[in-house]
Parts: sequence; C-alpha cells; structure tokens
Amino acid sequence: MTSPPDGCVIGVDFGTLSGRALVVRVADGAELGSAVHPYRHGVLEVALPAHLAGREVPLAPDWALQVPDDYREVLRIAVPEAVRAAGIDPAQVIGIATDFTACTMIPTLSDGTPLNEIEALVAEPHAYVKLWKHHAAQAQADRITSLAQRRDEGWLPRYGGLISSEWQFAKGLQLLEEAPEVYARMDRWVEASDWIVWQLCGTYVRNACAAGYKGMLQDGAHPSEEFLAALEPGFAGFVRDKVDQPVGRLGDRAGQLSAEAAAWTGLPAGIAVAVGNVDAHVSAPAAQAVDHGQMVAIMGTSTCHVMSAGVLREVPGMCGAVDGGIVAGSWGYEAGQSGVGDIFAWYVDHAVPAYVQDEATAAGRSVHEHLTALAASQEVGEHGLIALDWHNGNRSILVDHELSGLVVGQTLATRPQDVYRALIEATAFGTRTIIEAFTASGVPVEELVIAGGLARNPLLMQVYADVTRLPLSVVGSEQGPALGSALHAAVAAGAYADIRAAAKAMGSVRRGVFTPDEDAALRYDVLFAEYTALHDHFGRGGTDVMHRLRGIRRDAVRRRAVAR
Amino acid sequence: MTSPPDGCVIGVDFGTLSGRALVVRVADGAELGSAVHPYRHGVLEVALPAHLAGREVPLAPDWALQVPDDYREVLRIAVPEAVRAAGIDPAQVIGIATDFTACTMIPTLSDGTPLNEIEALVAEPHAYVKLWKHHAAQAQADRITSLAQRRDEGWLPRYGGLISSEWQFAKGLQLLEEAPEVYARMDRWVEASDWIVWQLCGTYVRNACAAGYKGMLQDGAHPSEEFLAALEPGFAGFVRDKVDQPVGRLGDRAGQLSAEAAAWTGLPAGIAVAVGNVDAHVSAPAAQAVDHGQMVAIMGTSTCHVMSAGVLREVPGMCGAVDGGIVAGSWGYEAGQSGVGDIFAWYVDHAVPAYVQDEATAAGRSVHEHLTALAASQEVGEHGLIALDWHNGNRSILVDHELSGLVVGQTLATRPQDVYRALIEATAFGTRTIIEAFTASGVPVEELVIAGGLARNPLLMQVYADVTRLPLSVVGSEQGPALGSALHAAVAAGAYADIRAAAKAMGSVRRGVFTPDEDAALRYDVLFAEYTALHDHFGRGGTDVMHRLRGIRRDAVRRRAVAR
Repeated sequence: MTSPPDGCVIGVDFGTLSGRALVVRVADGAELGSAVHPYRHGVLEVALPAHLAGREVPLAPDWALQVPDDYREVLRIAVPEAVRAAGIDPAQVIGIATDFTACTMIPTLSDGTPLNEIEALVAEPHAYVKLWKHHAAQAQADRITSLAQRRDEGWLPRYGGLISSEWQFAKGLQLLEEAPEVYARMDRWVEASDWIVWQLCGTYVRNACAAGYKGMLQDGAHPSEEFLAALEPGFAGFVRDKVDQPVGRLGDRAGQLSAEAAAWTGLPAGIAVAVGNVDAHVSAPAAQAVDHGQMVAIMGTSTCHVMSAGVLREVPGMCGAVDGGIVAGSWGYEAGQSGVGDIFAWYVDHAVPAYVQDEATAAGRSVHEHLTALAASQEVGEHGLIALDWHNGNRSILVDHELSGLVVGQTLATRPQDVYRALIEATAFGTRTIIEAFTASGVPVEELVIAGGLARNPLLMQVYADVTRLPLSVVGSEQGPALGSALHAAVAAGAYADIRAAAKAMGSVRRGVFTPDEDAALRYDVLFAEYTALHDHFGRGGTDVMHRLRGIRRDAVRRRAVAR
Repeated sequence: MTSPPDGCVIGVDFGTLSGRALVVRVADGAELGSAVHPYRHGVLEVALPAHLAGREVPLAPDWALQVPDDYREVLRIAVPEAVRAAGIDPAQVIGIATDFTACTMIPTLSDGTPLNEIEALVAEPHAYVKLWKHHAAQAQADRITSLAQRRDEGWLPRYGGLISSEWQFAKGLQLLEEAPEVYARMDRWVEASDWIVWQLCGTYVRNACAAGYKGMLQDGAHPSEEFLAALEPGFAGFVRDKVDQPVGRLGDRAGQLSAEAAAWTGLPAGIAVAVGNVDAHVSAPAAQAVDHGQMVAIMGTSTCHVMSAGVLREVPGMCGAVDGGIVAGSWGYEAGQSGVGDIFAWYVDHAVPAYVQDEATAAGRSVHEHLTALAASQEVGEHGLIALDWHNGNRSILVDHELSGLVVGQTLATRPQDVYRALIEATAFGTRTIIEAFTASGVPVEELVIAGGLARNPLLMQVYADVTRLPLSVVGSEQGPALGSALHAAVAAGAYADIRAAAKAMGSVRRGVFTPDEDAALRYDVLFAEYTALHDHFGRGGTDVMHRLRGIRRDAVRRRAVAR
C-alpha cells in the first residue's frame, strides 16, 4: 500500500454571479479554506454601462452578457484569500482546476484577448461574453433544429431532438447575422470554461464536456460545412475558422500555471492546470458518483441530472449524451428540469399571503421552512392536488419551453402549504419521469445523489425518495462543484491515476440519507399515474392549450404595445 | 287614467346572517327607509350554546342551524326602526311581505311552534332550523336521486337530474333517520319563508316558489307515497302528514296582520300579508325582469340565475323549473354557479402576497379594487391563463359538487392580477355556459340583469358583457330582495293588479349599463373555446382526475385521523 499523496489543490467554481475558490487536501479531500468573490459587473441584461462602453448602450430583451475580466478578478482575489483562509503555504499547492457555467461564450482574438478589451469594440454588445442564459438566439436555434430534422442529421438524437438557443452554434450564428464585422474580427469562439484555463496556462484546449454538450462535437466531428452553409452561407467556415481546437479529456493536464497567472493567484508557477469543466458535470465525482447507474441531481433554481453509463442509448428528451462528458471512458448523460427551486421561489414571492409570512416570522423561520413544516404533517394526497411543474417550460423529457404550469384540485379549503407541497411533489414526479425514460431506454438508474441547495429540505428529499423509490445520497460537500474541480486538479497533477481514484479518496457523499417508505411510495404511485396522464394530455398533444395560450399572450402583448 | 296608489309597504329580506326591513312608497317604489338586524345566534355550526340548550351540545361536520326566534326579532326591531328611519306614520303602511333564504326548514307543532321552543327538546339539534347550507343530508340526497333515476321519476328532469342535500326531502329524511322521536313529535315541516308569514298572519300557506324548487311540488303533486316508502318505510307518510298544505301564488294575500304581529312591528293590524318568497327569485321583479328572456343573475358569494319563460323545457343542469316559481303564469327557471365571489375572496385571503396588500393600502383601496385596477389595464388574453371556476364544485350545468378548480398557463412571470382576472373570466365563462344551455334548449336569453354586490366591479361587469355578448342591466336598488318583497306586499294589498304591473311602477333597473365590445367578444370566443374544452375534459368524463383527487383526499384525511 502506497502512502497517500501529499499537498493541496485548488478548485475554482465560476457561477452565474460569483466565483468560489476552495483549497482541498489531496490525501483525503479535506476542505481547508474557501473564498467567494462576486463579479464586479454581475450580469448585464439591460445595458452596457457607460464606464465600460463610454456611453450607456441598451440591450434587447433576452440578452445576458458578462465581462471577462471579472473572471480574472476571481483568480486575483478569491484564490489568494482561500489560501490564506486555509492557513497553508502556497508552495503546498500542486494543481488548480476550474469549472464554469455553460454554455457561456467569449469571442476572442487568436491570443485569447476578449473582443470587448479592444478599444474600438467596447460599445459593441456582441464583443462581450454571452452568458448561458442569454436567450436572444432562439430564432437561430429553431433554424438549426428544423434544418437538422429535415436533413435527418445523426447528431440530433444525441440532444433529445432539440438544439438549445443557449448553445455555441445558435449564439455564434446570432453574432454573425447581427454583427458581421465583429464576427469577422473574432478569431476564436471560446467557451468560458476553456478561456479561463487558457488564462491560467496560456494553452487553449477545449474540454470534452462543453465541446460535446454545448458544441455539438459527436464522434469526433461537428455539424458539417454543408449543413452550416445551408443554414447561412457565411457560416460555412464557422467550425474550421472559429471553433476547431484540440479537445482534452476531463482530468487531463492542459498545461502549467504561467508566471502571469502565478502572480495573480500567489500560487507557484509551473503547477498543473487541468482541462476545463462544467459546473453540473464536475459535481458528479465530488459526490463519488462515477459508477454507472448513479444519477446526480444538482438541485437549485433548476435541476441538472448527470449520469455515466457504459453504453450509448438514445434517451428521449435528454439534453445530451457525450463520450467522456463526465468521466473519461464512459458515456455521460445529461437531462434537466428547467424549473424547480425557482418555482418554489415564485410561489413564495407571488402567491403566499401575509398571514403565512407573519406566522413564519413568529416561528423564527423562513416562509419556505414554515410551509415545509406545515406540509410535512400531511398525509400523502391529503391536499387533493396535482400540479405540473412546467412554470419555466419543460426541458426533459418533453423538450418544450412553451409549456406552462398547471394546478388541478383547488377548492375553497385549499391553503398555501397544500399548493407548496403539490409543487414539491410535481418536481419529484418530473424527476421520476426522467428516470423512467432513462431506465426504459436501457440506461438504468439505481441511485439518486443530490447536490445543491434543495438537499437541505428534508420533506422535499423524503418526497423524492418515496416518489422515485430510490435511496437518496447527499453530496458531502457544501461546495460540490469546487470540490469536483479540486479533484480534477489532483488528477492533472498526477496525484491520482484517474478521476475514479480521486473521487474515491477525495469525494464525499452520505449514502442512504433518505430511503423510500414503501407505504408512501404506493400512495405516490397513484398520484404519479395522475401526473403522467396530465403530463401526456397537456404535453404530448392531447391538447395544445398551453401553446395556444402562449400565442394568445404574445399577440395580446403586441396589441397592447401597438395601442400605446 | 287612474291616480297612483297611495301608501307604503314593507319588504323584509331574511338573509343568512341578518334580516333587513325596507319601507317603500307604493306609487313609485321610492325607498324611504331601511334597517338591518343581525340574528342574535347567527349560524350554529359547531355547537348548540349552553344558554339555549342547558349545556353545550356539539354538532357534527356540515351542520348549520338557526334559531327561529331570531327571525321574530327582526320583525320586532328592524321593522319599527325602518319605519322610523322612513319618517312615515305607520298608519300609511298597507301591506307587508317577506323573502327568505331557501331551503331553510323548521320543524313545528301544528300551531307553528318551533320544536326547539319545547322545553324537552332544547338540547336536540334536530329540533332547530336547518339552514340552507346545512349539508349533512348528502347521503339522503344521493339515495333520493339514485332511486328516482332507477324509477325514472318524471319530476327528476325538472331538477336537472339531481336532488340537492339542501332541499326539503333530504333534510326531512335525515331528521327521520337520525332522530325518529323528534320526527314523530313534529306536526309540520315548514319552509322558513312560510313560517315567517304564518307568524305574521296566523295562516300557514306554502309559497309556490319554495314548494316547487325546494319541495319538489310539480304539476300539483309531490313524489308519491310509494316512492317515499321505497326510500324508507317510515317515510311513506311524509308528504301527507308533515308537508302537504295549500299553496299560494307569489303576490297573493296570505292573510292579514295579526294583533300579536301588529304589536311586534308597530304596524296596523289587519293590513295585507303576502305569501312568502325566496330571496333570489323575489329579486327579478325588483329589477323589472319579469318578461321572458330576461335572466337575472344575483351575484354574490355564489350566483343564482332566475328567468321566466312561457314554455316548459328540460334544460340540462338547471336547478329547477317551476310553474309560477317567479311570476304567476310563467315557468320560472333557476340555475346557479356554486362559487363566484367566494372564489375571489378565497384567492385574496389565501394567495395574494403582502406586497399587493401594501400597494393597495398605499393606493387607498381594497385588495379587490387594486387587483381589479391592475387587471383592467390588460388586453384580453395577455395573462396567458385559463381557469375553471369549480373551487366550490359546479352547480350548473354539470351538477357535480366533487369537481374542483383548475388554472392552466402559469409561468414564473405570472402575477396576482393575472390569476385574479383569469378567475373573473372563468366565472363569466361559467355564466355563458349556462346561457348557452338555456338557449340551446329553446329558452333563449336576451338580456342579463345583474343584482348583488359584484355589480359594483366594473371590470367584472364588462367581462361578463363581452363574454356573453349580452347587454348588461343593473338592478337599481341596493336592496333588491327587500324591494322585491315590497312589490309583492303592494300586490297583496291590492294596489296593483299583478306583479308585472307592480314591477313596472315600483321596480328599478338601469338598462344597458355595460354593452359588449365586439372586438373583445371575438377574443373571448377564442378563450371560451379553450374553457369549454377543459370544462368538457375535466367535467364530462375526459378524465375523472378531480373526482379521484377528492377520494384520495378523503382517504388521506381518514388515515391521518386514525393515525392519531
């Protein structure tokens, strides 16, 4: 038996609003210290501010931009702070790795300089980072999907049949069509998860995860030049000219920390820098969920499900299946529920009366905690409600963003805790629907590993266990993505042979924290059958009322705008 | 041309919580003064209080009792107060008439003494008044309906195919089965609307309205003794022994004010006392809505629709068709929506967040007014929602109290005013559904006359006009039922030849207050088609999920009770 590896590693998790650095001991994954730094400019959704652009430049609806130097600032501030907090000597650090939101895209020159850092382009919105939730490329996404359907492109089923407006090609096509001169100036179209690695080590290598899930790289190839030309003649060279680049496996070493980045971070130059990664996917090894059948659900405002499997199967409505997309050597699957925590938040913000707030205050707890406590005393089915959890559309398995929420069964006796519990149950039914789709497609799910903030709600966790009839494990770290990155840093530094070995030593999970209660599970079977019937009626063509209501709403809003 | 009749009349409206007396000038219907007196004991739903029963006697769920002497107190207090407020000499009063909630039943001795006034029975719940909303006779009502279906009783279609637990026979059968000794002691089973007349003039005459709608008197006959015996052998003599009594037409003179009642009221002994009436139905002549095709909607917590017609038709899902049930000489039709204002109240109480309350307070208006103002600025369809207004079940046209509410189309952008408007629209669609059932059955509706508190909401009124494509008239009096009673007093006193003549002189309506906007009506046609599709899917067997959810809820509540 060899002695455990020495030293520490740094994992840096770049989220939507801030970056978090975490110092982790390589030997056992102990979290020694961390620091968070918010992005100075946050998310730009209304305008480019004057201090950046020289004048205020308004943004159209659905835009969401960021500023690349805000990411560098996380390296300059949060990393040294985390090292100080850990009380270690920086010389003990043997590697650094990062994970990022995705698909978040940066247009750059050939040396990685973001276009917004060119003086002439500071007032050009298309020169900035397009954040994952920039949704202004829907028209381009629709065209990509429909052309792929017509041409029966083999890669389309790998994405559940629908290409998202969030992804690399839709956002790139928008850039070409709306700002051709910026497109011409752009040498590289870079995932932020790769750009930050490029900043750290001076080497541009695409990570297999983002390239596969967001960049439509399948079986070593992108959509063909012929396909791209059919979309738009000027787009034909997109892959060749702007995108193509060597792809690194997750956990591979991308390069070594440059002198410049060493100066920013206070870390030793020359230490290992790992290939980039995506925040959801990097959480799986942090929870030791690297074996087939272990589905990780990262539950926050929305839920992302990731799972490795030994086989490639076409699972209806998944977000993507990518070779080595989570762990090198396995097929990585991704699915998602587009509204979970944000449905509960919306409900509490806009549908919970003052008396519940007052009761919660009197009880010294949040409204969420109070409603949870009230709902927890109910028997399964006591509220008499069924909800569909589509308030933010349905990502998996229907892949339909025009669907909407539904609540059946309200009476004059219905109280807020009833609806709150029904909404929790609806999201659990949504997860079961995804799990059943995987299982039915030959990719069985045997364990559910929960990461993210919602794991702290015990009622919600028990409902998920009962509804899915699966044991629930909970990721041991409060900082799953940053820990996952640290793990990849350790592998890149050579401390472990591969991610599986690192996950075993450094990952952390509490197994079987919640186990299904068979009595409750049987009662939920009855409610799930009702959910499924409503799901299929409203989501699979029994009625298209939800689509028509969206259309009616759009027409009405337009009419009102004209009337003014 | 004759000169207008002299003198004044009194109308007394007995509601659920109080009685209201109104002094009206016979010549022109001018309202000279009024007074309200709340019932001392209100509605007894939890227990008989100790000061009445000698000890506190708990009541089972769904019970709702009242105390008859509370009604007499209205005569003793509110009538003299109204006369004083009017500033008239009591000698000017030539007649008095009353209307009452229905079906509200009083068990009495042969002289009209309520059984609860017998010392030995003060602690016996069955000796008290069973208020209209006493819903503890559902099992009996179900048996009456199913037996009538099996025997194909001709009177069943006159009630839309379903006998209500609120009505005379269901409540009477409950009394027999649960308290046979009280049943044996009871000489008469009297509608409160007739009992109060009996108190005023010493004559017991049943009114055609309550006898028809609530007492199942059709074509001069009740359900047969054979039918009653098949229900329960001891019930065979129910009609013969407890119910049968001469029936008076609405507006007929029942008798003259007794010396005792003259002493209570301060009115002259010997003046005319009219046959009793029911609060909803008496409102029609007050609004001059006595012609065929004029539907009166009395809109409060629920809505009652009444209309006269020259023909007898079987309208699916109506509450009843009664010869002379509103105006002697016409067929009176009744339909209803079991939840309207109480749905809006439930929504405001249990689903409107504190920030809306704060905004309303800052704007100096109620939450209802504030949500109405916000909703009024929307285009038709802008909220993207469709609701079903079944939070309190569906009275017409589905006659199904196990249905429940539904909201489709909510997103994270949905705000309280959106749902509020959708609920208003849902109730308007419910009214249109009723109107279309009448029209399709050969009883066309040409005008909608609104009475009740909701007439004060202009958005709601305009939505109803647009959705139904009918001109909306609004009853002129704030006290429609009491004015309607006063009109009947004038006819009973001989001041007018009949109700139609009295309505013309004394009734009051503002015609065409709201007229349909064709542009909005066309857009509502689209939403109404969606409402109808959901109505039929959830209410007519497309799915029975609402019934199943009720059953699941009942089982869960029972399970929880057992677990304790």
